[in-house]
Amino acid sequence: MVERRKPIKVQDAIQRMMNYKKTGSVQYVPIEDSYGHFLGQDLIADHDVPFFDRSPYDGFAVRAMDTVGASRSNPVTFEVIGEIGAGSVFQEEVGKKQAVRIMTGAMIPKGCDAVVMLELATEYEVNGVAYFDLKRSSKAGENISFTGEDTKKGTVLASKGTFINPGIVALLATFGYKEVPVSVKPKVGIIATGSELLEVGQSLEPGKIRNSNAYMVYAQVKRAGGEPIYLGQFSDDFDTCFIQVSEALDKVDFLITTGGVSVGDYDYLPEIYEKLGANVLCNKIAMRPGSVTTIVEYNGQLLFGLSGNPSACYVGFELFTRPIIREFLHTNTPFLKKEVAILGADFKKANPFDRFVRGHLGFKDGRLIANPIGLDKSNVVSSLGQADILIQLPGGSRGYEAGMEVSVILLEDQEGVSFDSFIKQDIHSKRSKRNEGRYV
Amino acid sequence: MVERRKPIKVQDAIQRMMNYKKTGSVQYVPIEDSYGHFLGQDLIADHDVPFFDRSPYDGFAVRAMDTVGASRSNPVTFEVIGEIGAGSVFQEEVGKKQAVRIMTGAMIPKGCDAVVMLELATEYEVNGVAYFDLKRSSKAGENISFTGEDTKKGTVLASKGTFINPGIVALLATFGYKEVPVSVKPKVGIIATGSELLEVGQSLEPGKIRNSNAYMVYAQVKRAGGEPIYLGQFSDDFDTCFIQVSEALDKVDFLITTGGVSVGDYDYLPEIYEKLGANVLCNKIAMRPGSVTTIVEYNGQLLFGLSGNPSACYVGFELFTRPIIREFLHTNTPFLKKEVAILGADFKKANPFDRFVRGHLGFKDGRLIANPIGLDKSNVVSSLGQADILIQLPGGSRGYEAGMEVSVILLEDQEGVSFDSFIKQDIHSKRSKRNEGRYV
Repeated sequence: MVERRKPIKVQDAIQRMMNYKKTGSVQYVPIEDSYGHFLGQDLIADHDVPFFDRSPYDGFAVRAMDTVGASRSNPVTFEVIGEIGAGSVFQEEVGKKQAVRIMTGAMIPKGCDAVVMLELATEYEVNGVAYFDLKRSSKAGENISFTGEDTKKGTVLASKGTFINPGIVALLATFGYKEVPVSVKPKVGIIATGSELLEVGQSLEPGKIRNSNAYMVYAQVKRAGGEPIYLGQFSDDFDTCFIQVSEALDKVDFLITTGGVSVGDYDYLPEIYEKLGANVLCNKIAMRPGSVTTIVEYNGQLLFGLSGNPSACYVGFELFTRPIIREFLHTNTPFLKKEVAILGADFKKANPFDRFVRGHLGFKDGRLIANPIGLDKSNVVSSLGQADILIQLPGGSRGYEAGMEVSVILLEDQEGVSFDSFIKQDIHSKRSKRNEGRYV
Repeated sequence: MVERRKPIKVQDAIQRMMNYKKTGSVQYVPIEDSYGHFLGQDLIADHDVPFFDRSPYDGFAVRAMDTVGASRSNPVTFEVIGEIGAGSVFQEEVGKKQAVRIMTGAMIPKGCDAVVMLELATEYEVNGVAYFDLKRSSKAGENISFTGEDTKKGTVLASKGTFINPGIVALLATFGYKEVPVSVKPKVGIIATGSELLEVGQSLEPGKIRNSNAYMVYAQVKRAGGEPIYLGQFSDDFDTCFIQVSEALDKVDFLITTGGVSVGDYDYLPEIYEKLGANVLCNKIAMRPGSVTTIVEYNGQLLFGLSGNPSACYVGFELFTRPIIREFLHTNTPFLKKEVAILGADFKKANPFDRFVRGHLGFKDGRLIANPIGLDKSNVVSSLGQADILIQLPGGSRGYEAGMEVSVILLEDQEGVSFDSFIKQDIHSKRSKRNEGRYV
């Protein structure tokens, strides 16, 4: 009676899904609200930096030609004809053997082409007029930050889709983005299924557990950059469920369900997909946990049928829904960064499917350590909050031992990588497995 | 004329400041809004997990005593008297040689003390009654997840002050936190100073630059977990500035100013502190950039006088203001995590002060690489958005070379460390410096 499902590889599931990726629109938010959004357009320099020739130090602006020949035995004397602070413009033209006291960041006065550092000038006053002696010559251009030497007007400083961190905010301010074009966050609907589920505010009763997956995924959607919408739990009645899904599709960009994708009597989703006439892209993926993860397309819209098992639900979201959300936000690097780490525990039992184990990233002597969490019965729940990596263990006929190199997917990463990089790292992981003896 | 200031060590400045740390209050937010907040109380299990003895697999619940002696040549036959899905309770008591078909997660029926996995049962039907033959005996307790074996009621699952990530949200839901106690975020006021500053919406003019520090710090406050309040720019008039600062102190928990802390004529802050009668904890710190960073206490309230130089402003915030904000949020680990990385570029020029260089964390063969950014004149601005570490280079008489081990402070870290760990890592860094030959 049990339906036979053919498992496909994780990367094949991603590729099928990516055929239906969508990109959202752009809205403007005040710069104060931009942190945590994603650039909706490339961030472009609207002016040269510096915008004018300026002094990088406190000192005296001079004409370099007047310093020629200055030495300890033959100092040159300059008359200080004024002072210029940052933000001001010195109005007069500076003449022969004249100098202007200049502050860090101030504009070089007309006529000057060098700045003498404060400590090289011996200052004194005669009859209320300020002078200094200089015992070293300056070259033209010395101690001047020239217009555009940092950044030319028109330079792309960050690409669309970039996560807006404090450094990006500084750039936005520098270049006059009072209103910042940001990617509109996709609306991601969440429906929980499972007759054993109580809502979070309900008292426990025998046989039941509280619905934690929906809230977990809700937070994962936020972390990924989406706008989650919790649409409640499925009813026990098939027709009502069908209407729930149909109506949800009109309200959201993507729809996630948790649970109900296995082949049991209580699992309505395969039937709902069929009745919708949806295109099932995959309903079995060669991965643990989460092999029942189902991805479906209906009228160009993606539906993610995540597992009801909390670990599988978590992993399915990060591998599949997360990059689809980031694509919507205009980035070219929608996948989480993968790096090499040393496995911190044994996984002696072989598994034909690729495993993605939640873990906590440790560091030892400058190396990354992949510490699995929730392996023991006694800490599945309590260790959940520590997860910041997925440890990827390619499927095969052999197990893994502590000390081997493995790939880890960095869950808190904001930079991201392309699909090609995401997949390339797998190859490395397979290689380490073949050569596992080397790494023990 | 120039005031002499005595530099103190970074760790001494932190310790002086920590004498005036404050802890905020607690408020309740709906669980949906809890992601990105910080736990205001310890997260405690309100029930055992599992809450009842349950089946970890699909199978048949049986009485182990009935399986005694079952073997290939002598199978035991069981009558299947019912079925139980997750969320349901089987009402009858299971008797001799009886079994109940049980789904993953469902409660073990009364009388049963073992679960036989589906693949070990040979099922058949006789006159509409379901049976299965079993060819192996089960032990009492086999394939049962017992009440409380994962987590005991009352266990502390995460400490107050913990950043609420998706895993923590799952725990909050599991344990019935429909409303979550979160730390109230401190109000952090920001005032920008500098006569060269234009506001972000203003057109550029000669000699001026747009105010980027205030917006950068605004985002840094958010990342740290505070609630930033931008109070605008200082006026050019001392008395007005004094009133601005005095009034700001009534509205905020902490006050940041950017710029105006040097000893120049345009730097009002030292004078304002004096007129307030504030207690200057430090006005010179042995660090680069940011040696002018000034920390002041007035009636128990901390004022951070950050440098007007963007790098110095950024670094001063992360080293000093950030831990004060995290303390307010109830954490015991308010400092950013420090790890060992391989330096990616030369810093040949020695500096007597500790340097904190903004950098981008790279990875190579499982090792952390510290890539400095903004070192060349040509990319100070454009590389700003990439900063995710501060590279710490202890002061001394020698420079640093690419390939040496250095400490890096992880700017995106949410876990944090205690003051002791933060300082301990410094010692390591000093050691690597002494042994630098080894690491090149």
